[in-house]
Order: sequence, then structure tokens, then C-alpha cells
Amino acid sequence: MAVRASRRDRSAFLAELVASGLFVPSGVDGVYGRGGRFEEIRSAVEELITRRTINVDAERLAFPPLLPKRQLERIGYLSSFPHLAGTVFSFEGDEADAAELERRAGAGEDWSGLQTQTSVVLVPAACYPVYPAVAARGPLPQGGVTIDLGGSYVFRNEPSQDPARLQMFHQREMVRLGEPDVVRGWRDAWARQAVEILRGLGVEATADLASDPFFGRTGKMLARSQRSQELKFELVVSITVDEPTACASFNYHREHFSSVFDLRQLNGEQAHTACVGFGLERITLALLARHGLDPYVWPSDVTSELWPGRG
Amino acid sequence: MAVRASRRDRSAFLAELVASGLFVPSGVDGVYGRGGRFEEIRSAVEELITRRTINVDAERLAFPPLLPKRQLERIGYLSSFPHLAGTVFSFEGDEADAAELERRAGAGEDWSGLQTQTSVVLVPAACYPVYPAVAARGPLPQGGVTIDLGGSYVFRNEPSQDPARLQMFHQREMVRLGEPDVVRGWRDAWARQAVEILRGLGVEATADLASDPFFGRTGKMLARSQRSQELKFELVVSITVDEPTACASFNYHREHFSSVFDLRQLNGEQAHTACVGFGLERITLALLARHGLDPYVWPSDVTSELWPGRG
Repeated sequence: MAVRASRRDRSAFLAELVASGLFVPSGVDGVYGRGGRFEEIRSAVEELITRRTINVDAERLAFPPLLPKRQLERIGYLSSFPHLAGTVFSFEGDEADAAELERRAGAGEDWSGLQTQTSVVLVPAACYPVYPAVAARGPLPQGGVTIDLGGSYVFRNEPSQDPARLQMFHQREMVRLGEPDVVRGWRDAWARQAVEILRGLGVEATADLASDPFFGRTGKMLARSQRSQELKFELVVSITVDEPTACASFNYHREHFSSVFDLRQLNGEQAHTACVGFGLERITLALLARHGLDPYVWPSDVTSELWPGRG
Repeated sequence: MAVRASRRDRSAFLAELVASGLFVPSGVDGVYGRGGRFEEIRSAVEELITRRTINVDAERLAFPPLLPKRQLERIGYLSSFPHLAGTVFSFEGDEADAAELERRAGAGEDWSGLQTQTSVVLVPAACYPVYPAVAARGPLPQGGVTIDLGGSYVFRNEPSQDPARLQMFHQREMVRLGEPDVVRGWRDAWARQAVEILRGLGVEATADLASDPFFGRTGKMLARSQRSQELKFELVVSITVDEPTACASFNYHREHFSSVFDLRQLNGEQAHTACVGFGLERITLALLARHGLDPYVWPSDVTSELWPGRG
């Protein structure tokens, strides 16, 4: 019995995903293994976005999901999103400390006091490592730079029972650095292209003005300012009845990252930057919610978009 | 001027990788961005291993690089490798705490006191999430189970200036669960196959008896016992002159994981398990060290192994 996307709440959808082997529970909210069928769809979405790219001469770079702690501090992430950051701690003690760690862990006691902060944190947005890396090369060449990061794991500390809110997920991410008009135009063109890509998959999506989940009272002001400057658009889809889900975002940072890392154009002026990120797991879930849990019986115009070689 | 693999030390090799854009420094040891050429080789190695698989009817599963803290405790990882584990902390405070966090981070002060341990840690070995996931299904079917995890990010807290020792790297990982003889035979067959795969890439590799880097004095005993039982083999290659590098491992766990997660065969007996992991970044580095930094001028028998479609 097919349950329509619009009738399903998130706990029912999660139960269906688990029953069909698409998600494998780990015992922790927001952390799931994924079955082969899920991964096949996710990879196909990633490759579809690559085939439909509007980037010209993009440079491929890849980063692991670790960021130097110092970069998180410099970017100001801890001011805006302290609640979402994940930091990496480790053990630095001697054999006596190790014995105590083992004892506490075995007894189910708190062993956090035997962990020390390292120099790395988890990457909260796939584009973050790009800005210092490109800045280290000196001024941008004429026309700026486009970086294609492929699919990259990112972390958000927001454990949830919503299957579309994972603690780590893949962003299919791209970054544009250069002149303000060019950068903003690229961001806007990708927002239009993303609507087309989703429409080709039979998923109705709208690109809406949005704001980031800034922390606290000051955050409300930051969110208003972000909206009034039209810095962020999100592609919103319906996965469950609970609330619409953003499955891609299109962000114009103006000179935010350039002022931190001194990113300059060839003429010496500060560069502007923008990034585009597709949430691959969310798009996969939107497809499963829309067309059913078995892609072998999806409409042929959808499967031919995703797997053009299969004929 | 080509530098032969056998003449290069690790700092010279790292400098070459950075100068050629294959590695992009992050400012932290063992954390690098990777250029497109590096990623192309790494993907090709991953696909080659898939084409050369000896697995029959393997089931595809994928896991994010997060593991429930409780699983790390149960597996005994904190007893054997407390120094390698990475744990995830986050911020749980109110607005006043957030203001203090922001102040400390801005002033370059220690802000670890404002971080709290979460319920997740970083995955130290790609196979770990498999055992509880398969155990949850009940007894294994006749013939046991083979799981193919694809390429998965894992974390080890061992910052180093050796380009072959990364804090996060990809394991191309597979797991076999079932009868002792079958499981051990699968492990041994993969060790032989791995030597063949590397030889086809022009990389001389030997499968040597090995032990894990257990912590402390007790660890020395554990390592001796592991060797005497022939539980671990590693495929060792020469990347730099400093020391041989293990680029794959073949591990027979006997009933270790089964006793923790109560993994049983259909006949009710405890299952045995084994895992095979290829270090994709290390194999990529071994290829670069052996054949030079530009794959476009590699020997044609090597490139036709890696990119058979390119003709």
C-alpha cells in the first residue's frame, strides 16, 4: 500500500525506511546506516547534478570532514552557530589515566574528563576549507575561480527523529569567488537550475528566501538582516507532513570570507564569494517520499534522468 | 626531475605533493585538501578493487563516519586504542555561556570547558557499525553474510608530518560473518588477491603478519598474542624511505565482535568475523611515489588497469 508523501509524518516515514532496509538504525538519533538501494539513488543524484552543471572551468578539490579549530574561530562560526558545532576531543594521558578511562567506560560512567580538545573540529559546511586554500594562492585570476567540491560529509549537532535531519550528511557543494556581480549572478543561476533539476525528477520545489538558524536573541537580528539582503535562498520540498524541508541552499556571502582570509581580485579589490550546496540525502528522501520506496517501479521519465545509461 | 620512490623521504614527498596541487595544506598536520588529479586516482583504485572483488553476493551498506559512543565502549576500543579515538563534543549552554564561548574563541583562549561530550564518536574502523547492524537481524542465514561498505571515512588521532598518515582517510572495506573456516579462508583469499591487484598496478607489495598499535605495556602482550594467532596481515608498500607503509589490512577477529553483539550462525553457534580494508589514500600515494606525480605519463599497463574504458 503506497502512502502518499503528503500523508506521511516523519515517524511513519522513518519506520518505512527502516522496514525496507533503506535506513539501518544505529541506536542514536540522526545516525543511520544506509542500504545499497539508498546509496544507488544518492550517487545517481550526485552524478545528475554533475551532468547538469552550469559551472565553466570549475576546479575539483576535495576535503576530509575535518577543519582546523583555528579556522572555525576565525570564520565566526562559534558566534553564530555555537549549538551546531562538533569539536574533536581525544585522550592524552598516561597508562594510569588509560586504566581509569577503561574503568569508567566499562562501568558506563562519564569519561569526558579524560578527553582533551584537539586542534580539529568537524566541518559544518563543505565550503569552509576552500576560502583559506584559495586565499593562500594570492589574488584571484581574471574572471575569478569556481571550485567543485563534489559530495562532502558535513556535521551538525542536531540529533533528531526526523529522518531528513542527519548528524552527518553529504553536501554536493560548489563555490564561486570573484567580482560581486558575477558571484551573485552565478548563485542566482544555480538556484534556477536547481529548480529545473528537481522538476525533472518529478519533485516540485520552490526557491525561497531563507535565513540560517543563528543562535540566541542576537541571532534573530542576524537572520532578519540576512533576509533583507537576500543573501540566502533555499530549495524547499515536501518529504513529510510535519514541515517543508530545505534540500539545497544558495548563499551569497558578500565579503564575509574574503575579509577573514584576505581574498582579493586581480585588481586588488576584495573578492566576493557564494556557495551552492545540494543536500544529497534529503533529495534522495524526497524522491523516495514522492515516488515510493522501490526505484524499480518509479516513472520512467524519472529513472531515465537518474540512470540515463540504463535505457 | 623525477625522484625515485626509494630516494624520497616523507618531508620531500609532502613538499612535492603540495607543490603539484595534489595536496592542499590546511594548517594542521594530517589534514589536507586533495586536488582533482588525486581524487581521480583514488576513485579509480576504489573502482578497480570493486571490479576485482572475490566476494560472492555481497550486500552493500554505507555508514557515516559517526559511531554511537556506547558501541566504542562495548567493543573495548578504549582499552586497546584510547590514544587513537576521536570523540565528538558540542556546546549545550545558554546565551551567557555562548557569549563567553565567543569571547574565549576570539581571544585565542581555551574554550574546551564550554564543550560537552555528545553520544557519538568518530568511526575508527569502517567495519565497526556492521556488527550490531547485522546482529539486530537475528541469526545469520546459511553460508553467512558478506557486507561491502564501499569507501568510508575513518578517523585516527595521530597527527603526523607523514603524508601517508592522515587524520581521516578512506578505507575500502568489506566484512565476512559466518563459520570460522569460511571466514578465515575469505580473509586469506583477499590477502592474496590484494597482492595481485597491487602488482597489476606496478606496485610491489607483500602480505606480512602484523599487529595493531595497542596502547601501553599490556598492549605489547596483546600484539604478541595477535601475531601468534595470525589474526592480522598487512599489505606493505614503499612510499618513502622512512619506513614501509601498510596500505591494506586483513583481519580475522574470531568471536571478538560476535561475543559483544551476540552474532550467531543459523545453528546457534557463535559466528566468526573478518574484515578487509584497503587504504585508498595510501595506495594512491604509493602509485604517485612509484610512477611519478603525473598519471598522464604513467606506464600504459598501469593506466589501462585503472581506467579500462579510456582505451
